Amino acid sequence: METRISSIHREVVIGAEKPTVLIGERINPTGRKKLAASLANGDLSIVRQEAAAQVEAGADIVDVNVGAPGIDEVEMLPRAVEMVMGAVEVPLSLDSDNPKALAAALKVYRGKPLINSVNGQEQSLKEVLPMVKDYGAAVVALTMDDDGIPKDSERRVAIAHKIVDRASAIGIPLEDIIIDSLVLTVATDTHAGLITLDTVRRMREELGVNQTMGASNISFGLPEREIVNNVFIAMAIFSGVTCPYVNAARVLPSVLAADLILGRDRFAQRYVRGYRQRLAAKAGT
Amino acid sequence: METRISSIHREVVIGAEKPTVLIGERINPTGRKKLAASLANGDLSIVRQEAAAQVEAGADIVDVNVGAPGIDEVEMLPRAVEMVMGAVEVPLSLDSDNPKALAAALKVYRGKPLINSVNGQEQSLKEVLPMVKDYGAAVVALTMDDDGIPKDSERRVAIAHKIVDRASAIGIPLEDIIIDSLVLTVATDTHAGLITLDTVRRMREELGVNQTMGASNISFGLPEREIVNNVFIAMAIFSGVTCPYVNAARVLPSVLAADLILGRDRFAQRYVRGYRQRLAAKAGT
Repeated sequence: METRISSIHREVVIGAEKPTVLIGERINPTGRKKLAASLANGDLSIVRQEAAAQVEAGADIVDVNVGAPGIDEVEMLPRAVEMVMGAVEVPLSLDSDNPKALAAALKVYRGKPLINSVNGQEQSLKEVLPMVKDYGAAVVALTMDDDGIPKDSERRVAIAHKIVDRASAIGIPLEDIIIDSLVLTVATDTHAGLITLDTVRRMREELGVNQTMGASNISFGLPEREIVNNVFIAMAIFSGVTCPYVNAARVLPSVLAADLILGRDRFAQRYVRGYRQRLAAKAGT
Repeated sequence: METRISSIHREVVIGAEKPTVLIGERINPTGRKKLAASLANGDLSIVRQEAAAQVEAGADIVDVNVGAPGIDEVEMLPRAVEMVMGAVEVPLSLDSDNPKALAAALKVYRGKPLINSVNGQEQSLKEVLPMVKDYGAAVVALTMDDDGIPKDSERRVAIAHKIVDRASAIGIPLEDIIIDSLVLTVATDTHAGLITLDTVRRMREELGVNQTMGASNISFGLPEREIVNNVFIAMAIFSGVTCPYVNAARVLPSVLAADLILGRDRFAQRYVRGYRQRLAAKAGT
């Protein structure tokens, strides 16, 4: 199954037979004080820099999230989207909890965007799915609902089926739903990683859809988080994740290695090119 | 299923619910000129150093291989085994293509060793399995036979079944067979990684046995091999490998992360201890 996301410059195709697509997660003020402060002042210069840096580091799609206390997302998200469209050529992921902000961003976006996100809550289904349909967008579907994030894979899978059914009922094709099985830290729950990986495997078997995740949550509260993140993303790609949200600069080498091992990189061409680019980047600094 | 290997000092238990057991692969003169030269001169000082260094780096079992041109393994392997038994407390893997060398090493070994290896060739089955039985040892079973290493997982699985059946016929219990699904480089065969991982998954489902592999072969001929090795070992452990042959110093952090993610490290105790040990080691140098 292939999901297509586009800007006016290019189309990105997400699919299990293709190299993993990386969605750059860094334009998000949560936990980033400097970015939050500049956004609160209406200053989008960091957003522009961060967009360019992520594409340089290997992001195929850039996520744009401006949600933080004191920021009017309905006004700011479309402005940020305009800024990022001017800064980079890749397609964008429009990211907000606020459906009005998503609607405002959709109005200015040129191409087929990824909407981040819908979930199994009734209100979310009612407000977000019609926008997905109206704009012919793709959407990230979070496997949580009014009761929060289920502690087991059965209920996460059930929520995914519910979202897919509701989307299908209004004419959104299955390939435009990207499931997020949700990642919680293993620091406090020994089984958190297994539950997510099991959900991913079952989603691949039952629906065959493209899948994303915010992989770095797995290591929250642990030292040397990158080690855990890189191992987890390898297992997640192996299980069925095709387009994770990541800090591209930190995970690209492992993702290229995962694609190579999984037979998606003939003659190791992408892996070796990535290596040469890292060498050149080092020589340049 | 649990496989037990022991020295006179300690027992190592290998099993899918337990932390991954690392078998140190560094006492092997293949491709290591200095070690080969010292062994040819009858000098075992590097063997002693390498044994201690690997245990320090996290190896739970140490493999001892002295096979190289100009070395009489029948004389040298038992000497090396004696030396390593005196240097470290962990159990050993007795490693040779030469059944007479294995027999000589078994005579001096104290504890329950791992014999490395038997394979599906008729001669190997006839010569090695009786020794495994006589000494109550465990054995690594390579999924290759007189026709070499099969290009598909079906035939590798079939060879494993054949070895298990032949072992069972002379009274060797299933838990004393550790399957090696064999790793070839992805540099020249795009599907090499997938074939091995598929074999591992099937072995877990069909036999439920413990499994090993020489993981680093995956990256032969590639740059920055450690990136590929660490990603591959994560996928291999996830698929069913419980006791890989590795350079412990290079893979321990990723293996600890894999065990953590797979629910084998309650409250991240081992992962955090490994982190502290790395910090202490850095501070010491």
